Amino acid sequence: MRFRLLVEYDGGPYAGWQVQPDQPTVQAVIVRALATVLRGEVSLVGSGRTDAGVHARGQVAHFDAPGGATVDPVRLRRSLNGLLPDAIAVLAAERCADAFHARYDARARRYHYHIATTARALDRRTRWHVKPAPDFVRMNEAAQALLGTQHFGAFCRTQSATVNRVCTVTQASWVPEPRTGDWRFEVVADRFLHGMVRALVGTLVEVGHGKRPVDAMAGILATQDRRAAGPAAPAHGRALEHVAYDAPFDAPDR
Amino acid sequence: MRFRLLVEYDGGPYAGWQVQPDQPTVQAVIVRALATVLRGEVSLVGSGRTDAGVHARGQVAHFDAPGGATVDPVRLRRSLNGLLPDAIAVLAAERCADAFHARYDARARRYHYHIATTARALDRRTRWHVKPAPDFVRMNEAAQALLGTQHFGAFCRTQSATVNRVCTVTQASWVPEPRTGDWRFEVVADRFLHGMVRALVGTLVEVGHGKRPVDAMAGILATQDRRAAGPAAPAHGRALEHVAYDAPFDAPDR
Repeated sequence: MRFRLLVEYDGGPYAGWQVQPDQPTVQAVIVRALATVLRGEVSLVGSGRTDAGVHARGQVAHFDAPGGATVDPVRLRRSLNGLLPDAIAVLAAERCADAFHARYDARARRYHYHIATTARALDRRTRWHVKPAPDFVRMNEAAQALLGTQHFGAFCRTQSATVNRVCTVTQASWVPEPRTGDWRFEVVADRFLHGMVRALVGTLVEVGHGKRPVDAMAGILATQDRRAAGPAAPAHGRALEHVAYDAPFDAPDR
Repeated sequence: MRFRLLVEYDGGPYAGWQVQPDQPTVQAVIVRALATVLRGEVSLVGSGRTDAGVHARGQVAHFDAPGGATVDPVRLRRSLNGLLPDAIAVLAAERCADAFHARYDARARRYHYHIATTARALDRRTRWHVKPAPDFVRMNEAAQALLGTQHFGAFCRTQSATVNRVCTVTQASWVPEPRTGDWRFEVVADRFLHGMVRALVGTLVEVGHGKRPVDAMAGILATQDRRAAGPAAPAHGRALEHVAYDAPFDAPDR
């Protein structure tokens, strides 16, 4: 029987999602908790990797319960949350089709990147404080060139082994947050390359600081060369907000 | 020349606002940074103490610049934010009347207390996760008995040396947060007693769990006895949001 989890995590304490030898990762911590609850090893497949320090409010992962185990999803979620460290929370757990695949069935991923325009204490772990405040209206205009199906090699980490660097971006906009004066970048695509969101944000902030023209993005995309884009923005401003599937999760059980 | 600061802080790392021997406090850290920037000792007066672990988004404090020092408030704010740890941020610094007093001139204080109804990872440092979710509509009804000028001895820590325990509460309401399913308690009063917000929240949660009747608050207030109220809610859900003065701060400089 296959199950899927909707997971929120604070990326700060972890070396990303993916299991790595001798490093604490979100996947490894959840696999260990699942093994305790289900009394058997499971293989956990996430919708995709997130980098070290990147947060998630909507990561999705599936696993098959060990042979013969009876699993009540509500009890499973509670047991996992009782075992997991504070920085990881299972928002929902549910039975899914045996053919469901968290990675291959994902239709789209939504990332948000938060920028603070003033020094901040309480939200400092989830926002990049950019000094001086960039021109977000200009950055929003520049971001429109990212829409559509294009080669994003210029925004992919050079060490990445990924061959296919074509992505379809369906949203790329800067949205103001009224009360704080902060802004967030909302970007939705069928897939993201390694370091893509951070490279996009770092480059757009250069546009917002007037270091690049507002129509810079098309030319950078055309180079397919990472060196043409700007520096990566810090990881802690980025969060995986949502992964879209044909069958969405039921509302989290309160 | 007198100046005032608008300060945000993460209470987690500190033993509260007020200077204490051998303990890290927010006041002590700011006084040290001011001494560096202004090259002289200053006395910093806050609008009031906050307990260990309690956050602030709008603490206010005043100080007099050492004799003869020329102070540009914008540069002062930037210098302080450069020196202060990440958990403390000066949102605004401005010249104020020499008669201004952060504590005595405060007309009202606004506290928010955040409750999460599901396990949370990213916002865990600012929300109390209450299991099971209490009935907030019932808690909101119960809270109405807190309005007006009353003796709040039943919600004041027993060790408190404060003699006058009469407060005028002008708002006490539970407000839902649409996207998350979380709720926050918004409470405004001319003054608060030691541990008052946390005792109010802890008692209201008992009403929300059906352990006390919805009209319990009037009877508890009448006892003037801390033992009649419920346990204190944890500190980390509470934040000092705003202190009201006749002359409000200018909008923080971005």
